[in-house]
Amino acid sequence: MSGRFTRLIRFLAKDGRTYYGDAILPQGVTDVAKVQRARIIEGDIFGRYHVTDQEVGVRLLLSPLSQSQVKTVRCLGLNYAKHAKESNLPEPKYPVLFYKPVTALSGPLDPIPVPLMAQEDTGLDYECELVIVIGKRCSDVTEAEALDYVLGYSVGNDVSHRDWQIKNGGGQWSHGKGFDGWAPFGPAIVTGEVVRDPQNLRIWTKLNGQTVQCIIKLTRETKNGTTADQIFGVRKTISLLSRGVTLMPGDVIFTGTPEGVGMGRKPQVWLKDGDVVEVGLENVGTCTNKVEFEAPKAKI
Amino acid sequence: MSGRFTRLIRFLAKDGRTYYGDAILPQGVTDVAKVQRARIIEGDIFGRYHVTDQEVGVRLLLSPLSQSQVKTVRCLGLNYAKHAKESNLPEPKYPVLFYKPVTALSGPLDPIPVPLMAQEDTGLDYECELVIVIGKRCSDVTEAEALDYVLGYSVGNDVSHRDWQIKNGGGQWSHGKGFDGWAPFGPAIVTGEVVRDPQNLRIWTKLNGQTVQCIIKLTRETKNGTTADQIFGVRKTISLLSRGVTLMPGDVIFTGTPEGVGMGRKPQVWLKDGDVVEVGLENVGTCTNKVEFEAPKAKI
Repeated sequence: MSGRFTRLIRFLAKDGRTYYGDAILPQGVTDVAKVQRARIIEGDIFGRYHVTDQEVGVRLLLSPLSQSQVKTVRCLGLNYAKHAKESNLPEPKYPVLFYKPVTALSGPLDPIPVPLMAQEDTGLDYECELVIVIGKRCSDVTEAEALDYVLGYSVGNDVSHRDWQIKNGGGQWSHGKGFDGWAPFGPAIVTGEVVRDPQNLRIWTKLNGQTVQCIIKLTRETKNGTTADQIFGVRKTISLLSRGVTLMPGDVIFTGTPEGVGMGRKPQVWLKDGDVVEVGLENVGTCTNKVEFEAPKAKI
Repeated sequence: MSGRFTRLIRFLAKDGRTYYGDAILPQGVTDVAKVQRARIIEGDIFGRYHVTDQEVGVRLLLSPLSQSQVKTVRCLGLNYAKHAKESNLPEPKYPVLFYKPVTALSGPLDPIPVPLMAQEDTGLDYECELVIVIGKRCSDVTEAEALDYVLGYSVGNDVSHRDWQIKNGGGQWSHGKGFDGWAPFGPAIVTGEVVRDPQNLRIWTKLNGQTVQCIIKLTRETKNGTTADQIFGVRKTISLLSRGVTLMPGDVIFTGTPEGVGMGRKPQVWLKDGDVVEVGLENVGTCTNKVEFEAPKAKI
């Protein structure tokens, strides 16, 4: 058995403790969200660690990284040609970069809390995204060496409120994308060994069980009858974002969403209180989060 | 002598060690950058600490917060009416919010490194800003209680490259503002006791000793013959940014720049290799950083 993990999970175990572990999946299962047992990992997942032989039952999957492990959450906008088109925006020449605060990060089964100010209007939307987790400090990385700095991949939901993102944000998207818990991701950090080619993965969103976004392959080539695909792939993204910028272990990069977001549909679809949103990525798994409108607080 | 600090500095001492201290300023001096001695602080500056009687000589001022102490760097755009006008943009109804990565933070005497990609064109610019440092975890804060969560105030430079911010950024400002070391701040974190009214402070930039931005008072009232002032003051900014969002101890908020940036001048003024930029704030002091164009690296 290898001493390196392939599907890194952080979880509450049946013994009541929180661990890092390497997920054990039954034959034929690829969605890490279905994990029931894991081998406990000891040590620093960014440095010296080993996967032990000790197996333990998984009670609840947590965010693969705690907020204190992450320095910066980077996100790309308009990174799929068809999504740029549905947003009525030109295909970008350089990555369109924005950030979320680390307080937006949450786990693959956590609720998405919607504060009062984002309940007032229509506009609450989903975005399934391939998420890169950086494993080693780096800057000025070439495309050729970019994957050496990747710890692994997850799937995430770049939850967005279109009114606060676009209409009220003064042109900057931060306000409508940065609320607490609006960057759920997981279910695991899956290494390149399992993911294989990160530019050749199906990605999707299901809203209350129904596929709304977007069974395609992440590739510039036409596959499965579609060319809706990443403009800046993983290698290029890491190389371009690291120019003059130090990427730190634990940094996460949400790499943009394909077409099919609620804003782009006809008629438009907005998330409501109680909706269940699943985002999924081939060879990685699913992240399933329930929309929870927050009750008014007395003091505000 | 009080056990609480009023001018919190982090510094390399003459004994070769790094400390937190409470700056000791000679009579009549208000710029903390001129500090020569400090009283050592023991404990957690966000929690239980005390200012000791032990004095030590200051060799070099460091960033008041190390990168590991900061979760999120928030910034406001267009927060002064006259600056919005010089940028040819309407006065915003809500704060225009963007972020910098924590790797952009640096100290009051550090160089501003300019990577190759930001040397290619004109467009390197300065922005003097009042910086708020959050002292306690909070969310959904009212304007009345907002200042209870402030550890203190600094002055910072929201260094910006206008081509990467505007032309190449696809509308999002992050790329042109997020390079390593492009958020120097300091020289201290000065408490409300010393700052008094944060909406009534002179703020300025000097480029190679010459004032280029913008001797005004930060106030909605007309003072010193100008109304160029903050649209969203400190209380309102904290209240609005904390709606649905948890602000963490050590979070910093750059609150926008007044008119007089290089882009807005006629003719326009761009920073060059070797330029020295001082940003200053009344009752706080100055932050003086030299522009250093980086040499080409062999591997890129």
